[in-house]
Amino acid sequence: MTKKEEKNIGITVKKSDDFSEWYTQAVTKSDLADYTSVSGCIALKPYSYEIWEKIKEVVDSKLKKLGVKNCYFPMFIPESLLQKEADHVEGFSPEVAWVTHGGDTKLGERLAVRPTSEAIMYDSYSKWIRSWRDLPLKLNQWNNVVRWEFKHPVVLLRTREFLWNEGHTAFATKEEAEKEIEQVMALYQDVCENYLALYGISGKKTESEKFAGAVYTKSIEYLLPSGKGVQGPDAHHDGQNFAKAYQIQFLDREEKKNYVWQNTWAITTRMIGVMIAVHGDDKGLVLPPRLAPIQAVIVPIYTASKKAEVMKAVDSAAKSLKKFSLEVDDRDYSPGWKFNEWEMKGVPVRIEIGPRDVEKNQAVIVRRDNGKKEFVPLKSLAAGVESTLEEIQKSLLAKSRKFLQDNIAEASAMKQLVDSIKAGKMARVFFCGNLKCEEEIKDKTGGATARCIPSDAKKGKCVLCGKEGQTTYFAKAY
Amino acid sequence: MTKKEEKNIGITVKKSDDFSEWYTQAVTKSDLADYTSVSGCIALKPYSYEIWEKIKEVVDSKLKKLGVKNCYFPMFIPESLLQKEADHVEGFSPEVAWVTHGGDTKLGERLAVRPTSEAIMYDSYSKWIRSWRDLPLKLNQWNNVVRWEFKHPVVLLRTREFLWNEGHTAFATKEEAEKEIEQVMALYQDVCENYLALYGISGKKTESEKFAGAVYTKSIEYLLPSGKGVQGPDAHHDGQNFAKAYQIQFLDREEKKNYVWQNTWAITTRMIGVMIAVHGDDKGLVLPPRLAPIQAVIVPIYTASKKAEVMKAVDSAAKSLKKFSLEVDDRDYSPGWKFNEWEMKGVPVRIEIGPRDVEKNQAVIVRRDNGKKEFVPLKSLAAGVESTLEEIQKSLLAKSRKFLQDNIAEASAMKQLVDSIKAGKMARVFFCGNLKCEEEIKDKTGGATARCIPSDAKKGKCVLCGKEGQTTYFAKAY
Repeated sequence: MTKKEEKNIGITVKKSDDFSEWYTQAVTKSDLADYTSVSGCIALKPYSYEIWEKIKEVVDSKLKKLGVKNCYFPMFIPESLLQKEADHVEGFSPEVAWVTHGGDTKLGERLAVRPTSEAIMYDSYSKWIRSWRDLPLKLNQWNNVVRWEFKHPVVLLRTREFLWNEGHTAFATKEEAEKEIEQVMALYQDVCENYLALYGISGKKTESEKFAGAVYTKSIEYLLPSGKGVQGPDAHHDGQNFAKAYQIQFLDREEKKNYVWQNTWAITTRMIGVMIAVHGDDKGLVLPPRLAPIQAVIVPIYTASKKAEVMKAVDSAAKSLKKFSLEVDDRDYSPGWKFNEWEMKGVPVRIEIGPRDVEKNQAVIVRRDNGKKEFVPLKSLAAGVESTLEEIQKSLLAKSRKFLQDNIAEASAMKQLVDSIKAGKMARVFFCGNLKCEEEIKDKTGGATARCIPSDAKKGKCVLCGKEGQTTYFAKAY
Repeated sequence: MTKKEEKNIGITVKKSDDFSEWYTQAVTKSDLADYTSVSGCIALKPYSYEIWEKIKEVVDSKLKKLGVKNCYFPMFIPESLLQKEADHVEGFSPEVAWVTHGGDTKLGERLAVRPTSEAIMYDSYSKWIRSWRDLPLKLNQWNNVVRWEFKHPVVLLRTREFLWNEGHTAFATKEEAEKEIEQVMALYQDVCENYLALYGISGKKTESEKFAGAVYTKSIEYLLPSGKGVQGPDAHHDGQNFAKAYQIQFLDREEKKNYVWQNTWAITTRMIGVMIAVHGDDKGLVLPPRLAPIQAVIVPIYTASKKAEVMKAVDSAAKSLKKFSLEVDDRDYSPGWKFNEWEMKGVPVRIEIGPRDVEKNQAVIVRRDNGKKEFVPLKSLAAGVESTLEEIQKSLLAKSRKFLQDNIAEASAMKQLVDSIKAGKMARVFFCGNLKCEEEIKDKTGGATARCIPSDAKKGKCVLCGKEGQTTYFAKAY
């Protein structure tokens, strides 16, 4: 390792000074992901893909408990099929990547690369669903989608292709469908809080911000350190909109034809970006233990004469830590260089073992999130690591909750709203829900849009027009 | 359930009479997969997707033991990038689906929807690989690819989009790379034999049939009941071909610049089609127990007066079978109708429990593969199911081996070769490897191509020209 490489490894800006540069360096230098030759599309390197695999695994097992089954549909959607639901096509077609040729042959009809799969799935649903016996139909895909946005791409947070799950369910009744929306949103909230350690605001989107084709959209909203709001997982209740557009009907127990009631819901790789943005610090990533590809790293500290005895203790320590995802770093670098690298990569726990520790039959546990050191007897190292990981996991969620709460500003007048947005806060106001008011607020605040109406919304006079409204969060959208 | 529906469920042709129609009905009526509105693209319904998930899981865990890590690259490849390796682009561009527009905007450069990811991955490899410390680099993707073929599509066996894994590895030496080819082919063979219960011929492809851009290709070749050969999983040793085209160089321990040595390897959803085609019978699917989404189904048999006591025994039997993927079918249909349905879906073991069985504290185990019935005491039902599943798994592999061996014809002269191909056999000949001879054999046999040179090939005179050759298998390709 040359001096030059040693220097290059660190992040060169402070998170608070230049969030956007900090974020890009944190993601790329820690080996999470990289830009590619395709504009707006990134490579998820093993370090981020493993996080995604863990998110998938936990979401998937919880979905299966709700009776959801996985499947796979074509990623191409014939243009005529996409056009069947008017709002849906209007919402998505400006961002569709179009396939026009197969080899040298021009296709008879353009094919959309799926921005979402309602059109292609519901075309099949209309054939597959015949009677009440076929309901509920709860299918889910883990796949890739493309939305050809023209905004500046940001690794993980805004990319033209991303990975997600998309659940598409059909029910005999509105009640069943709406009940599922609550179940799935609770599932996503659970995963975001207890795995990604992210606290967000659960609520309903306003009319202008709901999903193209939905009756209503529920989501969890997050705030980035840059003061931008970002939408997390969401669930859309589609009523019978798509059922009517795609003719999905079933014979009920009385042999009467009815349209099904539908939902769609999703969580995307973008959430890894939110997680990095919220938890990271000037040294790099801070990963929640439950999703960290490496939960703990042992860094042996020795001079040549002490190497054998230190490594013996390290080996035995490693053996006692088999239940964790553990790395033993005995590479030929200085301990300080290794500390920096593992801190950059956000490994939750570092374990140091040096000659003095060997003498005392102890190890040092260092927490990534707050730097605190603790001496632990070697024989209770596993218990020490376990409880430290649990504490870090809890502490990150608490910190994320505090960050959001500290950055919510109550605003009862437009001036307060404008000032709060300028200060990078998420503003809580009363809002009438009128589209014109929403536009005017966006205009006056330099871009803030309604993020959501929280589930515990109260009634009050609209911050702009004074008409009856309800609690609504506003922020600039990412 | 109306009479009409009851009639519709079965397959209307015999496998031996019309394989192609039998196959389509077996796949679609058993709810494995369905055609969609996108020509040549299918929907993998939960029943087939679950089989794919099981294949993924076993392949993935074995790959991880070889040190392979998962990642995700963009599915779009800029045209200029695809063109860097001449043979590669020539092989794939006739089948590339091209994206030309993002929304209403014409793109500056066409984007290929990945037919395979060498181009996009190796472009990144050239940035990521700097020194011997970065090697070996062993990355894998589980993703979707598109090859816009113009042949008649067949559900699972030949579709324009399919799912696969694609491993792309880079080594410091040729020896390491070639060793990996053997490891990965052994891994695939293990999975195909011991999970899919498919016996194939492992060997090397001829020059004309190797992967576009590879130095050589190894594969496992299967024979369909229709007499067509079909290529299974494969591994390509690329030498330094792509390394030179994409400038993937590393500094070795002597600080000297070298090109890396590379491999790529894959298994696809097509193998589910091969598995169905080989094992199925006139009643429908016959699924190998290790991959079957439902391993056993209990069908209770009762009249109204006996229902309670039968269901009590069924419940207790089900409890003892928790380690299996079990279905209890107490729907309001006749036992015979249920038998047909579960046979159609290829569930390996059916368990019947009727009043007489309850009296005798027994159940009937019926094997899907050969229809054999066995009475088993209820208290040892779990052990009985377990051993039956194991026997079926073994028996299907043995049957597949016998099927292939019975359909291999030794041919020492052209007339024999032509006759063997006409009879739907796979022909074993000596072949010189000359492209002209290969073309002439194809011509004379009405389409047979070289499937592979087996690993135990012997030397002998070419069946066509009489020059020195080696053992080579020929068959019409699927």
